[in-house]
Amino acid sequence: MNTSDVAQLFKQIENGTLTAAEALTRLAPTQDDIGFACVDLDRQRRCGMPEVIYCPGKTPEQIAAVAKSLNDAGQDVLATRASPEAYDAVHAIIPAAAYDAQARLITRQQTPPSPIGHISVVCAGTSDMPVAEEAAATAEFMGGHVVRVHDVGVAGLHRLLARLPELETSTVVIAVAGMEGALPSVLGGLMHCPVIAVPTSVGYGSSFGGVTALLAMLNSCASGITVVNIDNGFGAAVAATRINRQSVAQPKDSSL
Amino acid sequence: MNTSDVAQLFKQIENGTLTAAEALTRLAPTQDDIGFACVDLDRQRRCGMPEVIYCPGKTPEQIAAVAKSLNDAGQDVLATRASPEAYDAVHAIIPAAAYDAQARLITRQQTPPSPIGHISVVCAGTSDMPVAEEAAATAEFMGGHVVRVHDVGVAGLHRLLARLPELETSTVVIAVAGMEGALPSVLGGLMHCPVIAVPTSVGYGSSFGGVTALLAMLNSCASGITVVNIDNGFGAAVAATRINRQSVAQPKDSSL
Amino acid sequence: MNTSDVAQLFKQIENGTLTAAEALTRLAPTQDDIGFACVDLDRQRRCGMPEVIYCPGKTPEQIAAVAKSLNDAGQDVLATRASPEAYDAVHAIIPAAAYDAQARLITRQQTPPSPIGHISVVCAGTSDMPVAEEAAATAEFMGGHVVRVHDVGVAGLHRLLARLPELETSTVVIAVAGMEGALPSVLGGLMHCPVIAVPTSVGYGSSFGGVTALLAMLNSCASGITVVNIDNGFGAAVAATRINRQSVAQPKDSSL
Amino acid sequence: MNTSDVAQLFKQIENGTLTAAEALTRLAPTQDDIGFACVDLDRQRRCGMPEVIYCPGKTPEQIAAVAKSLNDAGQDVLATRASPEAYDAVHAIIPAAAYDAQARLITRQQTPPSPIGHISVVCAGTSDMPVAEEAAATAEFMGGHVVRVHDVGVAGLHRLLARLPELETSTVVIAVAGMEGALPSVLGGLMHCPVIAVPTSVGYGSSFGGVTALLAMLNSCASGITVVNIDNGFGAAVAATRINRQSVAQPKDSSL
Amino acid sequence: MNTSDVAQLFKQIENGTLTAAEALTRLAPTQDDIGFACVDLDRQRRCGMPEVIYCPGKTPEQIAAVAKSLNDAGQDVLATRASPEAYDAVHAIIPAAAYDAQARLITRQQTPPSPIGHISVVCAGTSDMPVAEEAAATAEFMGGHVVRVHDVGVAGLHRLLARLPELETSTVVIAVAGMEGALPSVLGGLMHCPVIAVPTSVGYGSSFGGVTALLAMLNSCASGITVVNIDNGFGAAVAATRINRQSVAQPKDSSL
Amino acid sequence: MNTSDVAQLFKQIENGTLTAAEALTRLAPTQDDIGFACVDLDRQRRCGMPEVIYCPGKTPEQIAAVAKSLNDAGQDVLATRASPEAYDAVHAIIPAAAYDAQARLITRQQTPPSPIGHISVVCAGTSDMPVAEEAAATAEFMGGHVVRVHDVGVAGLHRLLARLPELETSTVVIAVAGMEGALPSVLGGLMHCPVIAVPTSVGYGSSFGGVTALLAMLNSCASGITVVNIDNGFGAAVAATRINRQSVAQPKDSSL
Amino acid sequence: MNTSDVAQLFKQIENGTLTAAEALTRLAPTQDDIGFACVDLDRQRRCGMPEVIYCPGKTPEQIAAVAKSLNDAGQDVLATRASPEAYDAVHAIIPAAAYDAQARLITRQQTPPSPIGHISVVCAGTSDMPVAEEAAATAEFMGGHVVRVHDVGVAGLHRLLARLPELETSTVVIAVAGMEGALPSVLGGLMHCPVIAVPTSVGYGSSFGGVTALLAMLNSCASGITVVNIDNGFGAAVAATRINRQSVAQPKDSSL
Amino acid sequence: MNTSDVAQLFKQIENGTLTAAEALTRLAPTQDDIGFACVDLDRQRRCGMPEVIYCPGKTPEQIAAVAKSLNDAGQDVLATRASPEAYDAVHAIIPAAAYDAQARLITRQQTPPSPIGHISVVCAGTSDMPVAEEAAATAEFMGGHVVRVHDVGVAGLHRLLARLPELETSTVVIAVAGMEGALPSVLGGLMHCPVIAVPTSVGYGSSFGGVTALLAMLNSCASGITVVNIDNGFGAAVAATRINRQSVAQPKDSSL
Repeated sequence: MNTSDVAQLFKQIENGTLTAAEALTRLAPTQDDIGFACVDLDRQRRCGMPEVIYCPGKTPEQIAAVAKSLNDAGQDVLATRASPEAYDAVHAIIPAAAYDAQARLITRQQTPPSPIGHISVVCAGTSDMPVAEEAAATAEFMGGHVVRVHDVGVAGLHRLLARLPELETSTVVIAVAGMEGALPSVLGGLMHCPVIAVPTSVGYGSSFGGVTALLAMLNSCASGITVVNIDNGFGAAVAATRINRQSVAQPKDSSL
Repeated sequence: MNTSDVAQLFKQIENGTLTAAEALTRLAPTQDDIGFACVDLDRQRRCGMPEVIYCPGKTPEQIAAVAKSLNDAGQDVLATRASPEAYDAVHAIIPAAAYDAQARLITRQQTPPSPIGHISVVCAGTSDMPVAEEAAATAEFMGGHVVRVHDVGVAGLHRLLARLPELETSTVVIAVAGMEGALPSVLGGLMHCPVIAVPTSVGYGSSFGGVTALLAMLNSCASGITVVNIDNGFGAAVAATRINRQSVAQPKDSSL
Repeated sequence: MNTSDVAQLFKQIENGTLTAAEALTRLAPTQDDIGFACVDLDRQRRCGMPEVIYCPGKTPEQIAAVAKSLNDAGQDVLATRASPEAYDAVHAIIPAAAYDAQARLITRQQTPPSPIGHISVVCAGTSDMPVAEEAAATAEFMGGHVVRVHDVGVAGLHRLLARLPELETSTVVIAVAGMEGALPSVLGGLMHCPVIAVPTSVGYGSSFGGVTALLAMLNSCASGITVVNIDNGFGAAVAATRINRQSVAQPKDSSL
Repeated sequence: MNTSDVAQLFKQIENGTLTAAEALTRLAPTQDDIGFACVDLDRQRRCGMPEVIYCPGKTPEQIAAVAKSLNDAGQDVLATRASPEAYDAVHAIIPAAAYDAQARLITRQQTPPSPIGHISVVCAGTSDMPVAEEAAATAEFMGGHVVRVHDVGVAGLHRLLARLPELETSTVVIAVAGMEGALPSVLGGLMHCPVIAVPTSVGYGSSFGGVTALLAMLNSCASGITVVNIDNGFGAAVAATRINRQSVAQPKDSSL
Repeated sequence: MNTSDVAQLFKQIENGTLTAAEALTRLAPTQDDIGFACVDLDRQRRCGMPEVIYCPGKTPEQIAAVAKSLNDAGQDVLATRASPEAYDAVHAIIPAAAYDAQARLITRQQTPPSPIGHISVVCAGTSDMPVAEEAAATAEFMGGHVVRVHDVGVAGLHRLLARLPELETSTVVIAVAGMEGALPSVLGGLMHCPVIAVPTSVGYGSSFGGVTALLAMLNSCASGITVVNIDNGFGAAVAATRINRQSVAQPKDSSL
Repeated sequence: MNTSDVAQLFKQIENGTLTAAEALTRLAPTQDDIGFACVDLDRQRRCGMPEVIYCPGKTPEQIAAVAKSLNDAGQDVLATRASPEAYDAVHAIIPAAAYDAQARLITRQQTPPSPIGHISVVCAGTSDMPVAEEAAATAEFMGGHVVRVHDVGVAGLHRLLARLPELETSTVVIAVAGMEGALPSVLGGLMHCPVIAVPTSVGYGSSFGGVTALLAMLNSCASGITVVNIDNGFGAAVAATRINRQSVAQPKDSSL
Repeated sequence: MNTSDVAQLFKQIENGTLTAAEALTRLAPTQDDIGFACVDLDRQRRCGMPEVIYCPGKTPEQIAAVAKSLNDAGQDVLATRASPEAYDAVHAIIPAAAYDAQARLITRQQTPPSPIGHISVVCAGTSDMPVAEEAAATAEFMGGHVVRVHDVGVAGLHRLLARLPELETSTVVIAVAGMEGALPSVLGGLMHCPVIAVPTSVGYGSSFGGVTALLAMLNSCASGITVVNIDNGFGAAVAATRINRQSVAQPKDSSL
Repeated sequence: MNTSDVAQLFKQIENGTLTAAEALTRLAPTQDDIGFACVDLDRQRRCGMPEVIYCPGKTPEQIAAVAKSLNDAGQDVLATRASPEAYDAVHAIIPAAAYDAQARLITRQQTPPSPIGHISVVCAGTSDMPVAEEAAATAEFMGGHVVRVHDVGVAGLHRLLARLPELETSTVVIAVAGMEGALPSVLGGLMHCPVIAVPTSVGYGSSFGGVTALLAMLNSCASGITVVNIDNGFGAAVAATRINRQSVAQPKDSSL
């Protein structure tokens, strides 16, 4: 709630259309304090998507309790990096919850959205697929129309070039690669649309768990690539969703 | 030129509507080999923006020669991280070229575009301004309508919150910060639109020339932040331009 | 024992109020050599708190023996990062010892102190709770009045702002966060009292086991933040205790 | 301004003791937007000390303009890491401004405070003095009574032990050291009061510009040491000031 | 397929010796899209060796399916870093496949080549043998005549010097070492032929999993050493094979 | 001199065809001790190329004295990373010495060799040219036939593909690139011959002076790439020379 | 065998006191090639101590075979970082072999030496004991008289000072510490004799597995400290043995 | 002064042979507080060598003042890393002071010692000479007989082997090398005496200013190498002096 909102409330109280007590309830940020967690029920309004549960470091019971809080508030539930144990705990409370083992996601959607736009999820190798799937499934959960393109790394360029016409119609591309992470550079030099690079921890030795791919992507000679954390398929999907929604929606503030 | 394009040529030769020699000229990628450089005159077609000259490591003469090659081909010229000496060399050949000393940019635009969309460039502190200006001036060069918001770092949150209504109408936000780089996290938790984070080398000691801000931004708890290289205002602007154009244009492939 | 203390002894021997032999016993530093360890029984006097047992790398038997040495000397026992096996060994010797599994602490207090002051332990996410609990339980062991504030990370700022009035009365705040570690920066810009930042190893990829949060906290744009080692809830609690005691006690050396 | 403050305003408007327009002015956060900077005139109220100007990356003109904004608002001016050129620009506008070349500080104080408490600034070697002086002069600017103890590194322990009685009466100690940074560990094991460690970039080779000292201090076996960024004498002084004020003031919220 | 190849096709179509449809099949890059993978059946033609399966991150089923794709296309199969489970899955489909447990390789060769040239695989210590074996077995798979020289590290130089006459006849040497990685430097100063250095992760503490050996090899004072990733015996063997084949073949383009 | 050589000497002394004194002179390693340096006059025999002078850290006088020692012994002189001052000192003593300012090389060749083989030096961008020239000029000095291919980075793939037919006839390729260093990966997937990757320090921020390119090249998904130190055009040329000579020479030890 | 030795042989053959064949056997370096290993039986002569078996990366069978080779040659056997499985394999072949589980050493000594000199092994904490024991037991194996001083870290300085008189008579001190590694600095400033610092991996978070202690020790302000690898108690013991033997032996080459 | 010393004083006061006041003067540690420095005049007694002045970060005036304090106390003066300006300031006060520009040392010796023992300073290349000279000159200042062996790096092993007989009579060897730092490993495998390794910052790119050489030396496969900080010739000389004195002196505490 920003200053102009509050100014509005002031006006209404002054006008007598609102009591101070009523105004106070409107001020109260929407959160659910469940002791060990303070669930942010206002995030859907602020950011267009509900709070998402990051599972590592939380007990299955804690995960299930946060999921319940969101579900009870009528919001969609998404839990990332979820173990089967976490799913069991959530499922016991929310029978409609689903589990995607490869992407390690727990999902529960009140009303599945009809997919919009065109998010391409491209991965360099089969070993990158768990991360690519986290991205693809998250983007679908958030309402995007997703096209998957697997195993088109730069050591065999013709595989990528063959898919180019299809890729060129994307609203946004998520490019997933480990090792030297060169895929986004090649893609970025061939296309118009935004490219989000996701480094993966695929590799060994001086790949340093994905650091090499991360650094390569940050230093791409193809300008306009943006990057997320290592193995962060989820984050890439959220960023892609923000772009995809923007691209599909009727722009509110264009000067065209 | 992809397989379907070539298939098309095959058809035309077979039909006699094209000679093999003519077809060959169409195959030839558009580039200008000037000895020490191979200017990519095809990038405007592929990526929607011409090749940009990265100045460090090039002599003023080399920079001027590449600028001339682009200019002669009727393309816009943008040179980044340009020294005054580089500008002098370019200016001697292209009198219409301009120089922005704070952003270190040389520009020459055939026909300035009318600005579209709404790109917000937000910076945490006054020391971050050179990077923010590189981003803002580049985005303007590429046709974006840019709004600058300076010095709204998280140590004084009220300054940022006061600008929130204005920021909420952006098609995309570029958030520029050094030191601990917390600005994008706070922004990301307050908005719908895509946020591109630019870490700067502002800081000392364990800021490690911007590495700390870079890492912080990559690990943002506000999901959906994407990141570019340290001090890479230019790269952020290119990414923002891709998003901005997408957002403003009538989407071609939406399932809405 | 410093020079002025020894000068005092010299005087007393000269005056005949002390024999050389008696003086010697006073010189002897108080320690208990139990072979593999040299327990520092003098630390309570020097630092205001007894030696604390750091468990990793020690066998349960060694831990129990050090605990016994302290307990036999009438001092309080605190063992950190203790496994259940370590507790079993201690408990077999000191039946009054207690175990806090979440905080991984073994405690045995001769006379529980009445809590003084106001130490706030604030954590960004539920995954940071084990570290926050190590801090909170340690601070309570050392006599502080502790208030816990959970899950108020910067991606949902309103949760933190709602707790601000309560936080503003603290004598010291311990701020616990992983990922990009932005919480202390926001807190530091909103308050008067000292803020101790504790980075946690919560995160993945380029969070590098807490290094990103550590670096971010060291580079906070909100001046006056001090930082402890990654996951070092214990150390933060000791530092907070030193401040808290100072704040509550009648200052001995003020120039007011 | 927090929720209870706003609730108060609501009440007053309802009671007719305040108009909506008046209330709005109270809401407005106090800041001075001077184009390239947004001076935080509210920080004195929130944090007990005015915004401080970090000079690197700012032009002398920018520094002077921010200083003028603060000075015009009747607040004290402190600029850190200031060059002589920066001072010249400030001095031209604020003739009463002073410059401390060793500490690289510009200061302008409306009414110098009478020093309170006892902040000891201890440094390991003469080469660490510029950082120690930044800490000492800042702490004095912020109203602390400061005692300097120079060149008492651990290679000659007797020098430190000789100063111990004096140090033991501090409300807080700032320990400044480069190289292996062992001084805070030794101090922490000998004293009751809070110890803030400042690593310096003194050293060469694998000192890595202060990283070694920083890491050593974060891993001190003497518990309760807190650490600030490399060469950050200023930050240590702010933290010490927060502790010192707390220690000297009559505690408002003690349970004693 | 490069431009001159396509020009050739154009000519043939124009001449009527080829239909457009036939030309298209020649254009089509040879790849086998099996859903989660896009097997590069063209690599044998481009690079002289078939695609190799990197096993980590792939399920046994995925590995077996890729192996089948290659085998069905009449190409040799090599899978690196293969677990016994992966072998079981491959073996079930391709009974002729073999497994080398020390080198962790699955192999299936249509027609074993007669070994050519002389590739020496030299290792510093017995602990480096798994990596050395990966190199040796891969080089043999690719048709090289391999000589193994084990345990001749620089702490006992005479062991290496005794093998020198034999080593001097190599077409290429692969030098495998962990710890301080000095072996390639000593070898490089004693020989004419190319030396490929393979750092291993043998060591502890500041060997950092092979980083020390890697860095030492990159900084060899014996010029002309080239280096591959840590533990990358496979990569070294491929590079050595390229050199070995070149050395043995009648050179096509010499100016001698 | 190895064991079999010494055994030969033993035989000759026993046979009376050699005196012990004469044998001793043959044992004596050929070196020229000039006080501050011990010039290795035997390296030409052992490694096929004379000792090369690495200039940094040596005074111009020292460089000139080593050059004189080699020249007097009738060997070729090559000095790398040489400043103009170093050249002046060498030139004063050896008037026939030449200087290549871009490559920073001093050369003096007794009898220029007729170039053999085909070494391609490919660079990604114009900013990489100084390193590429160090490689090219060194390879020419050592007798290779060198072909330069400039500015064919992966952001504009068609430029590289256009040069592919020419590149395919190389005996060895040196691929020079900074930033994300993707060029060798793309080349490695398109060719048969050995590829030596040279990372350059071109880039900024998280390119870390070439570390990113170095890591990317070490982790190339195109197998068989070998790598040298950052900016080490010289080392790449020596390695390429070893391969080139091997490829062109009649192989002595082939099993073909 | 160096040049003067060979010159001697030449003379003897010339004199007829040695045949060429006999001379050859003397040339032959003493090594035992057992396939996967090339045991250095000459190290005892060259370095004064036999080859030591580093166990990680070797199979129990390989370890036992090397041990047998040494034992059969009448040399002492020492195997470091040995698992119980390795010991079982050795013990089955050499029944007289012993195992020290804490120090992880397998030993077999033909004739135990009578201890000489005075090597002090000082450790900071009980958690450092396994490393300290590796050092102490190795030094004893190599004939040193060892005195152990445990748990005298700098957080309780009086414990160390109490042992100072005893320490001052050492020929060499091994100082073992983790965390911030300050112990060697304090020791180095209090003593005459050589101090070898051993960093341990004791600690967490930013101790980075011993890197912090390693760096601190390398940057000690007490000059004359030398350092070995993290957790390398063995290496410290070998270095101490070299010093200890030198100190006790009648010096051969003194200019006194 | 330790406990037994103080006990002695107690006895004497009790016996009347000493007054308390006299005893106090004996207690007083010998230091000279000159404001910005606290000169340790007691170090000669404790460590066998006076305090040495580390110049970086000190003004010439400060350096001269510390030198004067030592000189006035009749102690030798050694200042390291001294600039010519520092020397001028010292020389103005102590005319007998000398300056060694290559080693960057200021020295003033009351009575030059007659050199004892045999310290070999071996360096890998001419570029390493400044560091080697710092070591050699320091060791001579501290009374050692020093033999210099220059430019014997491992790329030309025969140069080192030729000097071996001479090296074998050393009491201690200081081995100085940059780049991959392999020299100490080779030396350690060929000799009995202690070897102190000094990494230098000679190199570029991934030598990281000497870090590669440092790591290589710490991980030497030749056991018993100890290491000092990068470019720390001074520290190596102090350690070598401690060993050299021990080796030459009649051992006081041997069990022989």
